[in-house]
Amino acid sequence: MVLLSGGVDSATTLAIARERGFACYALSFDYGQRHRLELAAAGRVARSLGAVEHRQVKLDLGWVGGSALTDPSIAMPAAASSGIPVTYVPARNTVFLAFALGWAEALGARDLFFGANAVDYSGYPDCRPAFVEAFQRLANVATKAGVEGDNFELHAPLIAMTKAEIIRTGTRLGVDYTLTLSCYQPGAKGEACGRCDSCRLRAQGFAAAGVADPTHYQEG
Amino acid sequence: MVLLSGGVDSATTLAIARERGFACYALSFDYGQRHRLELAAAGRVARSLGAVEHRQVKLDLGWVGGSALTDPSIAMPAAASSGIPVTYVPARNTVFLAFALGWAEALGARDLFFGANAVDYSGYPDCRPAFVEAFQRLANVATKAGVEGDNFELHAPLIAMTKAEIIRTGTRLGVDYTLTLSCYQPGAKGEACGRCDSCRLRAQGFAAAGVADPTHYQEG
Repeated sequence: MVLLSGGVDSATTLAIARERGFACYALSFDYGQRHRLELAAAGRVARSLGAVEHRQVKLDLGWVGGSALTDPSIAMPAAASSGIPVTYVPARNTVFLAFALGWAEALGARDLFFGANAVDYSGYPDCRPAFVEAFQRLANVATKAGVEGDNFELHAPLIAMTKAEIIRTGTRLGVDYTLTLSCYQPGAKGEACGRCDSCRLRAQGFAAAGVADPTHYQEG
Repeated sequence: MVLLSGGVDSATTLAIARERGFACYALSFDYGQRHRLELAAAGRVARSLGAVEHRQVKLDLGWVGGSALTDPSIAMPAAASSGIPVTYVPARNTVFLAFALGWAEALGARDLFFGANAVDYSGYPDCRPAFVEAFQRLANVATKAGVEGDNFELHAPLIAMTKAEIIRTGTRLGVDYTLTLSCYQPGAKGEACGRCDSCRLRAQGFAAAGVADPTHYQEG
């Protein structure tokens, strides 16, 4: 079970899970995010990396409020911010992993893969090792499988990698990064803005990895 | 922030939160359950107990499969079962609490109330003290508020009560149990079947509490 957003990190995570021999079920969310083009990217990535199944779950997190990713009244930051940024969506990864856990338990899958990264990670609390550990612990007391000793493992293979290491790993495993989308505010055809936190981290990653940046940027 | 299903336990939990002086925000889910009449019951209970706001979030758990509550191909058990029953919905309370956590963080609420009960509890893994403890721990590493030391508390005031104690407590606090619905397979107007696990526990609870059972049962 792989959480797949359609960005660099989750595409690389799917490739790693496949390399480890897992039959992969990919799960994406249509959660009222501004950049819904990322769902199309997730579909392309799932197909290209041979996922057995790719599900897109519609759920509304927009009403929760409190994030520039879902609330049009909060301005998207142009420059790198310090601390936890306004693009943080309250409890987002907890909600996503809770759904993944439910589907995994019903399917009989016990390995959850999640592209959290604590190095070039934008400062989100739910991308840290402490979160990964706490969710895995919860999973094993929250479920019938866990209680019966058939334990879940939450894998976060990127957690200690730099963006450059992620891109080098994915390139080695055959990830086609032209299929991915990272930008928080892409153009109508998915062209990246080149200015948001996510674009900035992605571009720095390709530069540091010594891999040509395949991103299609907006003109001007 | 109170999870409100419209049954006896969550109605009593809302009354307890109100008695403790909290302004209460109630959250219900329309999750493809067979007994959607419980949502109407939740609305009645929220109004009668003076919730500041009551939100109903639509989310599809039916596709997850694996439960008699959401999958019409799994028969509803008529008699008490041993072990974890087929009405268990994989990771359901984890999903519900994850949403509650997100809304709470955005609102500035830090107290989550949840009617889990480990005594007459039907055997669900996500109604045990170990689950409550693991979720609270997760909440405080998963969120911006928690990381900044503005901690969440997950209250499960019914966890050690018998159904009779719950009903006595709610009766003392003015809960009108005629507004609630517990049955897994109610009639068209919300009449209880009187036979499912949930009806059985409810009826035993009223009897043991020495409180007249106000439930409207199906005829025959």
